[in-house]
Amino acid sequence: MPIRVLGFDGDDTLWHSESRFEVTQGKFRDLLQRHVRDIDVDRRLAEMEMKNLNVYGYGVKSFTLSMLETAIQLTQGRIPATDLEVILDWGKRMLQEPTELLEGVGETLRTLARKYDLMLITKGDLFDQEGKLARSGLGDLFWGVDVLSEKNVESYQGVFKRRGIEPSKFVMVGNSLRSDVVPAVALGARAIHIPYHVTWQHEQVPESELPREGWVRIASIKELPATLETI
Amino acid sequence: MPIRVLGFDGDDTLWHSESRFEVTQGKFRDLLQRHVRDIDVDRRLAEMEMKNLNVYGYGVKSFTLSMLETAIQLTQGRIPATDLEVILDWGKRMLQEPTELLEGVGETLRTLARKYDLMLITKGDLFDQEGKLARSGLGDLFWGVDVLSEKNVESYQGVFKRRGIEPSKFVMVGNSLRSDVVPAVALGARAIHIPYHVTWQHEQVPESELPREGWVRIASIKELPATLETI
Repeated sequence: MPIRVLGFDGDDTLWHSESRFEVTQGKFRDLLQRHVRDIDVDRRLAEMEMKNLNVYGYGVKSFTLSMLETAIQLTQGRIPATDLEVILDWGKRMLQEPTELLEGVGETLRTLARKYDLMLITKGDLFDQEGKLARSGLGDLFWGVDVLSEKNVESYQGVFKRRGIEPSKFVMVGNSLRSDVVPAVALGARAIHIPYHVTWQHEQVPESELPREGWVRIASIKELPATLETI
Repeated sequence: MPIRVLGFDGDDTLWHSESRFEVTQGKFRDLLQRHVRDIDVDRRLAEMEMKNLNVYGYGVKSFTLSMLETAIQLTQGRIPATDLEVILDWGKRMLQEPTELLEGVGETLRTLARKYDLMLITKGDLFDQEGKLARSGLGDLFWGVDVLSEKNVESYQGVFKRRGIEPSKFVMVGNSLRSDVVPAVALGARAIHIPYHVTWQHEQVPESELPREGWVRIASIKELPATLETI
């Protein structure tokens, strides 16, 4: 079946994201370790993020709020407000950073846009994702943009219905097995997995739960045009 | 031209929102006044929200982050972290409150859904707005739902294009002159303004900038079916 629409994930597929969270988290660890000892700050922050996910959803604002709550809890309220102000400032900086594209993204998308309809399908904070897209300079290459609060079978189904996309003519491209590969393949679409060098634990999927077929893995977006000719 | 699609704003059109922000803001004022005197807390918070709008966007998480930053600044960092934890908790509560519909909303939408395609067109935080819609029990009545980061001429144009809506067959219904009436009328659609008893200052429009025609004002959503027969 000929491919008509290519869906692209944004964070860590088109532009760097997780590595930036890691940088901030490193600063957070250093800051907290001035106040508390022998506490696994990373683990406690990860637990807080998971606990808050169904209240806050994904994104930098949610991450900032979870850092603040973790800092207050781990210090039993002893952390000075001026340190919390520093954390607030990290969040604002993350939200305003230039969008740093992964290698090869610009040329590859420009090539593919001549042959396919390109869609950006990301999850996270609407305002933040739209800002990143605007700063990426890629906006004009996309036929459609959908920011979803969660990427699962239901939300992909919503995209297909709203946009009149036949799953058999759609290929999803992204770095997350959980959000990009598994739900797309479950709906009869195909998927291409491009791993990023850091994966948020939340996005990992046990090998046994991966679909047997309908997807391939490539090392770089630069291999995408040739790969699409073969699937 | 016969009407085919009705667009509804969510916050303060279908369900209560601004009054909840006001309740939290009242608690914030009381909390801050234990630490600082002779400061207009409401004005300072409003200024902070406006300053942060282009970094955070709209919504409860943005409001919470702005409360925290205001509290730290106004106390020059002297506020205890335990008070900031209280503010974090207010934000979480707001995000989890049941959706409280305005009077007449359920019956009116059920009546209108038999004759028109209904859309929800709100702005704000995607995750929060989807949660409110899910808790409202109205989800099945809508043919389409679009959460926008800003409601202006460009974003309404995007909705019309994506959904194949002719502006002349579309009526937007909402409590905000700035976000619901002015941009819809500018695109050749019609609008119905239903004022809410509290209006966020940011949403106000000087009378001189209002369109002369293309919109009407009604007092309650219950008048909507009859009004639609006359325009």
